[in-house]
Amino acid sequence: MRNKTSLSLLTDLYQLTMSYGYFKNNYHNTVSTFHLFFRKTPFQGNYAIACGLSDVTEILENFKFNTEDIEYLAKLEGNDGKGLFDNDFLNYLEQLEFSCDVDAVCEGEVVFAHQPLLRITGPIIQCQILETILLNVINFQTLIATKASRLVESSNGDPILEFGLRRAQGIDGALSASRSSYIGGVDSTSNVLAGKLFDIPVKGTHAHSWVMSFPNELEAFELYAKVMPNNCVFLVDTFDSIEGIKNAITMAHKLKERGHSLIGIRLDSGDLTQISISARKMLDDEGLYDAKIIASNDLDEYEIERLKELGAKIDIWGVGTKLVSAYDQPALGGVYKLGAIHTSKGIDYKLKISNDIIKISNPGILQIKRFYENGFPIADMIYDLNHNSKIETPIGSLINGEKFRPDSFKNLTSKDLLLPIFKNGVKVLDQFKKIQEIRQYKIESLTKFNSEIRSNKKTNTPYPILLEKSLHELKDKIITNIKKGI
Amino acid sequence: MRNKTSLSLLTDLYQLTMSYGYFKNNYHNTVSTFHLFFRKTPFQGNYAIACGLSDVTEILENFKFNTEDIEYLAKLEGNDGKGLFDNDFLNYLEQLEFSCDVDAVCEGEVVFAHQPLLRITGPIIQCQILETILLNVINFQTLIATKASRLVESSNGDPILEFGLRRAQGIDGALSASRSSYIGGVDSTSNVLAGKLFDIPVKGTHAHSWVMSFPNELEAFELYAKVMPNNCVFLVDTFDSIEGIKNAITMAHKLKERGHSLIGIRLDSGDLTQISISARKMLDDEGLYDAKIIASNDLDEYEIERLKELGAKIDIWGVGTKLVSAYDQPALGGVYKLGAIHTSKGIDYKLKISNDIIKISNPGILQIKRFYENGFPIADMIYDLNHNSKIETPIGSLINGEKFRPDSFKNLTSKDLLLPIFKNGVKVLDQFKKIQEIRQYKIESLTKFNSEIRSNKKTNTPYPILLEKSLHELKDKIITNIKKGI
Repeated sequence: MRNKTSLSLLTDLYQLTMSYGYFKNNYHNTVSTFHLFFRKTPFQGNYAIACGLSDVTEILENFKFNTEDIEYLAKLEGNDGKGLFDNDFLNYLEQLEFSCDVDAVCEGEVVFAHQPLLRITGPIIQCQILETILLNVINFQTLIATKASRLVESSNGDPILEFGLRRAQGIDGALSASRSSYIGGVDSTSNVLAGKLFDIPVKGTHAHSWVMSFPNELEAFELYAKVMPNNCVFLVDTFDSIEGIKNAITMAHKLKERGHSLIGIRLDSGDLTQISISARKMLDDEGLYDAKIIASNDLDEYEIERLKELGAKIDIWGVGTKLVSAYDQPALGGVYKLGAIHTSKGIDYKLKISNDIIKISNPGILQIKRFYENGFPIADMIYDLNHNSKIETPIGSLINGEKFRPDSFKNLTSKDLLLPIFKNGVKVLDQFKKIQEIRQYKIESLTKFNSEIRSNKKTNTPYPILLEKSLHELKDKIITNIKKGI
Repeated sequence: MRNKTSLSLLTDLYQLTMSYGYFKNNYHNTVSTFHLFFRKTPFQGNYAIACGLSDVTEILENFKFNTEDIEYLAKLEGNDGKGLFDNDFLNYLEQLEFSCDVDAVCEGEVVFAHQPLLRITGPIIQCQILETILLNVINFQTLIATKASRLVESSNGDPILEFGLRRAQGIDGALSASRSSYIGGVDSTSNVLAGKLFDIPVKGTHAHSWVMSFPNELEAFELYAKVMPNNCVFLVDTFDSIEGIKNAITMAHKLKERGHSLIGIRLDSGDLTQISISARKMLDDEGLYDAKIIASNDLDEYEIERLKELGAKIDIWGVGTKLVSAYDQPALGGVYKLGAIHTSKGIDYKLKISNDIIKISNPGILQIKRFYENGFPIADMIYDLNHNSKIETPIGSLINGEKFRPDSFKNLTSKDLLLPIFKNGVKVLDQFKKIQEIRQYKIESLTKFNSEIRSNKKTNTPYPILLEKSLHELKDKIITNIKKGI
């Protein structure tokens, strides 16, 4: 965690007024289960990449209201000008220790709409206070890991460099974006602090200002090469790209004479297709076959696909703004819904009803089972832990997808996607994987899905997500009861 | 500043490789001037609200590479597997202290495209290292303050509540957004930590989960009212909005009997126009004229304007995602360009050339003069401190706007917008205004601009921005020289 300030107040005030209400009604220790999920895959795509659990874990481990926090809350006033909260409650908050169970999908996992990314069970007061920060972290990091994954799919194996720091939404927006992008599959970041904090490769050479600082471009390249002969990627468009490429070639020959070689050039404006084709020819004509062409300038997955289709000769893609701000959809609409209240008489199943069917949540204490045939994922099933959790065949109603054959599977295997992270407030998944391993896991997991699911275009045959049969029946029954109750 | 981690590494690696280049070429102490500006007002609007200087000041005051930072940099390798930086440079960085002059437009000021929001003059190595974090902070906070200002214009005086924390881009994305939104003119935030850190009013009552936790809605309202009788805003759409309004009215009468009153109800789904009209009638029919109707659900300035046009009876607007993520334009494209190198022979003026005229930067050591006629702003003039800085009449070429009458002004006054913030690395503007004063300054400043400029729709007669005459001539001369040089 970058931020050592207490983050326990990083919540909506209504979570605290509700907590006060639960406390004064002596309802605060009621055990409840909430799920965090999104309803639509971002960017009109077919999947998302789960991300953010590492920060969530650190936040939960450090959950504690400090004296300063309590003093601030004591100063808050209601509409009558009196203190909003009483001392009993404030004392309670000051003593409060995190004691929930948390199960979550690991970072780098391929996930779909309606699937719980995180399940939390514990005193309702804690679940409520934590709602907002859990959503903040997981919504954003999942969004960016997904965007990065789309970029990687579009570049078809070409390396992608993330350099969005200057346009990111704040400091943590930038740092989290760099980490999430790397997990999503990009190769490196320009963000040095992200490199230090998260062990991500950092890359960078020079900007236009370097060239502008010296009398002319060739002299600027020469002064750079003198100092860093093994790190030469020349940005060629400060004045004119073609002249810049010529200067870079001049320098390439000088570097060669000195026992070094030009890594490449960077194009940052103009018609990237035409200039890259010219650049490749100019470099090849001089025998500089190994010199890479790096391109940047408002790139995203759509533009990369377009440039590739046009035959642009680009080897490495630099992406900033549109990755770190998730420009075409800057927020994932993840929500956090009550699934169950645990009473002395058993589980009281809960769901949020809505006229909009997509907004009706699933009741229960939910888990996701992913089924594989010959090692390839064929369907996920959302089920309640207390309903047929032993089911080893995917049976249920399709939430997503249109066709699914429920019989005759070959070499069927399955795994549960939510893993226990905290048990009674104690971290049980002790060692998170190294970030390189998370990234590798993401890449390998996604590869097992078919190319239509991986595609950046919306498929007509989405990956099947089933609601387990008895859970679906339960859900229908609850909806009927609520509607009767009105 | 929320973040006590050293932020000196929060920069692009290329700033450090360029710094290394400057250092090894003994060019690092060359005094340079850079300007931070944007080229297009965001959201296709007519103005922006400057924001972020408070964080910038704190970052610059704490600028220092610590031992951990240096150790990290020492580990970085070039393509040859050898250390990217040598010890001389790393020792230099460890000793480096911030010593620049910084002049900036204060927070809450109304600003326009091409105007420097910040000017920094000092050793080029420092200006370069700081580029990225200055852009990160000012780009984002200016973007959000502007978005908030647009919302305030659309609500036409109705209060706006910001509650975007759960959908913001990371922790700092949320905190900075809450602060910037308040400066932009919203009335309060749901973000408790932002309230604590920045002294912003916080608001909140209850969510759907409160209602779902209890056997039925009326009981849930009753349990809430029992504890917080003076803070009752009931969310009425958990099951059905109209039934929810009836339950809220039942509670309003009970509250009245007990000597309290219902503050209002919140609508969060459905046709907000129709439901709010029904709700108003239902409340009024029961004599609850003072009960407010609060609405939320994916609101932004366009939707608020639309609902107002349709006659929705909404008193208070809750805005989340679309404000804090600046949904329709999640990044401000602010840039940072070299304007001058200070040599022993005088000023060496610099500009970045481009085939795209809008991308050609202005050379110089720039200041903005805002001219007022009878106290109302009539034009801004960008000028170079060494060119006719005494000019007291707006004369020059229009960058923005189409008509401007350069004669016969009544009661002409003017002020320079960039104020000295640091002198030789020492903070000289010692006391920033209280956030309430910044917010008030923003509101009053914007009110002085005519309604077309304030409008959320692009005007055909934009506010005139002039490039001072002699500066314009100088710019043309430099462009010609660069083109000749090619």
